[in-house]
Amino acid sequence: MEIVKTIDEVRKTIKSWKREGHSIGFVPTMGYLHEGHQSLIRRAAGQNSRVVVSIFVNPMQFGPAEDFNSYPRDLEHDRALCEAAGAHLIFHPDASEMYQPDFCTFVDMNSLTRGLCGRSRPGHFRGVCTVVNKLFNIVGADRAYFGQKDAQQLAVIRRMARDLNLDIEIIGCPIIREDDGLAKSSRNTYLSPQERSAALILSKSLVKGRELLEQGERSADKIISVITENINTEHMARIDYIEVVDALSMEKADSIDRPVLVALAVFIGKTRLIDNFVFQPGLNENI
Amino acid sequence: MEIVKTIDEVRKTIKSWKREGHSIGFVPTMGYLHEGHQSLIRRAAGQNSRVVVSIFVNPMQFGPAEDFNSYPRDLEHDRALCEAAGAHLIFHPDASEMYQPDFCTFVDMNSLTRGLCGRSRPGHFRGVCTVVNKLFNIVGADRAYFGQKDAQQLAVIRRMARDLNLDIEIIGCPIIREDDGLAKSSRNTYLSPQERSAALILSKSLVKGRELLEQGERSADKIISVITENINTEHMARIDYIEVVDALSMEKADSIDRPVLVALAVFIGKTRLIDNFVFQPGLNENI
Repeated sequence: MEIVKTIDEVRKTIKSWKREGHSIGFVPTMGYLHEGHQSLIRRAAGQNSRVVVSIFVNPMQFGPAEDFNSYPRDLEHDRALCEAAGAHLIFHPDASEMYQPDFCTFVDMNSLTRGLCGRSRPGHFRGVCTVVNKLFNIVGADRAYFGQKDAQQLAVIRRMARDLNLDIEIIGCPIIREDDGLAKSSRNTYLSPQERSAALILSKSLVKGRELLEQGERSADKIISVITENINTEHMARIDYIEVVDALSMEKADSIDRPVLVALAVFIGKTRLIDNFVFQPGLNENI
Repeated sequence: MEIVKTIDEVRKTIKSWKREGHSIGFVPTMGYLHEGHQSLIRRAAGQNSRVVVSIFVNPMQFGPAEDFNSYPRDLEHDRALCEAAGAHLIFHPDASEMYQPDFCTFVDMNSLTRGLCGRSRPGHFRGVCTVVNKLFNIVGADRAYFGQKDAQQLAVIRRMARDLNLDIEIIGCPIIREDDGLAKSSRNTYLSPQERSAALILSKSLVKGRELLEQGERSADKIISVITENINTEHMARIDYIEVVDALSMEKADSIDRPVLVALAVFIGKTRLIDNFVFQPGLNENI
């Protein structure tokens, strides 16, 4: 497995693979990989004969008060995890390789991004769409893999790919959790032992919400208030948002009469964590 | 030469051409073709073994008070001109094929589009970038051809292709003019015989500006004022803008010490016409 830093190199390698008839799976990441990323890479390796992982902490998707500088980085660790999961190439560009000084183009959308993380992180999805669009153009993969943990991001990427006619299949993969239920995230590394324990309140309160839905509750307000009460039992937790939205449009859902995303963002100390589940009434199970 | 209306059809045809080893040249147009477009198609046919022309009057790049509905359309005429110039495929989608009802993604830039037509036509270049990005993704061409008449559009497309790492070569082609100097444009068809005659003032006044530059004048204000005076001798003309800008960044240039674009938009009656030239000091010739 090779690590390349320039766009020319990655293009050259992938073009030669394509000439040899290989299919290309792509897993875009910001590095500091965990088993969630590995599950994406394994899925990609199962469906494609070559797998490319990008590791790029994209400055454009961080707000000025956010954790771009402190975001954890460990390339040697990432290399080992990629190799173990079946990747064939890591694309690890510098910011200057991705953004020239007079860079001025962006990809954005005026729907899907108004609520949830889009409200809390203005400009975030513009940064995500732009860099993912660039990476798709550089790699030219057949399939790209994203985790359901970033549910709004997955919906946004799917919509971008559809609207801009990107010739790539977008594949969403389930949330990978620690044994005690905490959704795996590179940002979990920020948590002190006490905060790590407090962070369990996210998944626990979502379980309460899902139980209510499975018992037949169909009022989004009721679901939100139960999850809110649960989160508020943890004094280290500060709610950023708890929302129930249409699973495709990401628009606020009042009653649960179609597939919905129940999503939350909660600060534990200074660390902002997200978690979610999808519920499909009738099927009575999450997807 | 075939005309196809769906994205699936055009993709299928082009993918089979690629498998056969063909190179693909692409000429995006809004139809009502003239010799300017034909020069692009001929250039594409000289450099590629297959040439695709798109004919799509893109609603997204027209303002609410602009001429989307009245924009001239004549598919049979266009078919003949494409065939004569060496095209192999026309992609002629309906608006519903390009924009689904919940379409919400766009490509835009926060530089290059502030002046010139970008100031007069808010949202125009967002519409242009978005549709050209879509068309590039649909066609997957090796090279795309644009006329220098829409100089700002050409600069914007070049920048978009660079910034978003589009794997396509953008080729600009010279303005094609009528014998008397009027730049060829589909909108010339709007002109009454009297207006057609008055419209000559655009190219004539640009010639005056270029003569001054060739004589050594290096003040943009001076160039602009001479062109303005010339245009104003024609009582049917109403100036939208006359600008001298850096040929790459499209930022206002005060003194001509690098390649500049001298560009204007002028209403003749209700018809808005554009024209321009590029001047490179030292070379003393336009490019």
